[in-house]
Amino acid sequence: MSNMDNSDYIFGTAAIVGVGLIGGSLGMALRNRGLVRRVIGIGRSEEKLMRAKALGAVDDYTLDLDHGASDADLIVICTPVRDIVPTIQRMASSFKAGVVVTDVGSTKREVTIGAEAVMPADCHFIGGHPMAGSEESGVEAAREDLLHGATYVVTPTDKSDLTLVAKMAAMIDGIGANAEIMPPDKHDEATAIISHLPHAMAAALLQIAEDKQREAGTVFRLAAGSFRDLTRISDSPPEIWRDISLTNSDALIDSIDKLVERLAAFKSALRSGDEEAVAGFFREAKEIREAYLRIARK
Amino acid sequence: MSNMDNSDYIFGTAAIVGVGLIGGSLGMALRNRGLVRRVIGIGRSEEKLMRAKALGAVDDYTLDLDHGASDADLIVICTPVRDIVPTIQRMASSFKAGVVVTDVGSTKREVTIGAEAVMPADCHFIGGHPMAGSEESGVEAAREDLLHGATYVVTPTDKSDLTLVAKMAAMIDGIGANAEIMPPDKHDEATAIISHLPHAMAAALLQIAEDKQREAGTVFRLAAGSFRDLTRISDSPPEIWRDISLTNSDALIDSIDKLVERLAAFKSALRSGDEEAVAGFFREAKEIREAYLRIARK
Repeated sequence: MSNMDNSDYIFGTAAIVGVGLIGGSLGMALRNRGLVRRVIGIGRSEEKLMRAKALGAVDDYTLDLDHGASDADLIVICTPVRDIVPTIQRMASSFKAGVVVTDVGSTKREVTIGAEAVMPADCHFIGGHPMAGSEESGVEAAREDLLHGATYVVTPTDKSDLTLVAKMAAMIDGIGANAEIMPPDKHDEATAIISHLPHAMAAALLQIAEDKQREAGTVFRLAAGSFRDLTRISDSPPEIWRDISLTNSDALIDSIDKLVERLAAFKSALRSGDEEAVAGFFREAKEIREAYLRIARK
Repeated sequence: MSNMDNSDYIFGTAAIVGVGLIGGSLGMALRNRGLVRRVIGIGRSEEKLMRAKALGAVDDYTLDLDHGASDADLIVICTPVRDIVPTIQRMASSFKAGVVVTDVGSTKREVTIGAEAVMPADCHFIGGHPMAGSEESGVEAAREDLLHGATYVVTPTDKSDLTLVAKMAAMIDGIGANAEIMPPDKHDEATAIISHLPHAMAAALLQIAEDKQREAGTVFRLAAGSFRDLTRISDSPPEIWRDISLTNSDALIDSIDKLVERLAAFKSALRSGDEEAVAGFFREAKEIREAYLRIARK
């Protein structure tokens, strides 16, 4: 009978560890779209979990990692990125056989290596990264459609069971996001360039603007909307970016080196007054952007 | 009598060379707010000048630089930045004594040195830079309030007549913009950091994203809204950015060097896994941005 009850669900019981913006939105989408039988919230603050339940993000909650884990067919770890592997390790002895454990961390290589290393036999880790940016945080900002239309990267390895990867993809499709499947290191190399490096660039830009401001007092008076827009990403909590940077330092260092190489070439074109090379530097970028806008999801 | 007629005007006849987005918007504001007696458009395309007149940007127009210059008490050069000095040179023999010549170029040091060198006696060059960004161009996009609330930099030198600088500031105030007065080199150093360097950074970022895209095919699939926003400035015409870069190459090279220094420090913090230094890099940027948002004009 229970098999028949579950027949429309992709997973039976889902446990979400850390019911904030992403975890809460996932919980709402999984529940409201009937993708799982029930959603259990796991966390350390009963007050926050009560709020998550009141907002419809979870059916029930527990403060006990082991208790929460023992029932779950799907466990989604939504902690800060460097807490993911320790959290899995703490609850691993309570996992049900066949459980699928995933995460929503912004970097995937280190987490995946660490998670696979602590996975019990017959339990499966498949990393994930729902790419929904928001300047808000906390379950109060969660909404069922947060991930609607978003890219949701799934990062299996050669150890992953492809049937379970397909189940993850079906779940992602069910919540209205777009599954992209790629190895963890490819994810990290790509996000180093499109996300982590731009954060580092914005931070460095603000620092040199501040130096010039102190020296000449002129910079911030002239900084208009475009400067404000370009540096908005620096509003994010420094601890999050510390952890992202340190768990993706190889790819980030590599992308900094490549940026510096390009800027060095531009500098020598400027220094020699090479009009064609200077124009070409900007023209190439404009053409790449046009190609990107055609390729990127609308 | 003519003195009395002019008593409410800041300048008598204004000539605008190049009646596009900025020149056309300036013309509309000067006319509609009664800041000058009349506005003459000067350009090479009669069709465009007719359109400018139909749109209310100018009272009349001429294709003849000398004819247009001979009547003018204020001349605003709105050509591409590297055409400003040659344009002034071509019309200088027709200037009225006492004329104020200004420009709207994005870089000020080279233009000001060049313009002052070709100025006849009793004629005055005072550079300007109305900082109104728009992705549009042409007089069709012009509007009277384009510069309303914008920062409008005036860049006098030790050769400038302060009474005329005050007249420029009064005119800027009259069109609803905020006059900022600073030497040309201070303007160029500040805009190198807040505008020219970010353009170069966005171009280099697009180039390395394209390299990774070719190598791994993953980048553009993952690039979301924030990457699109960060690289939007690369849509601008490459020729404009070639000219801005080449007329401000010293300050731009210096700001690239400073950016690279900051990124190098960040890289060594990453390489040594120095958590406090990595967090500090992002924390410092967040604090600078908070300070900037307090200082910057709303």
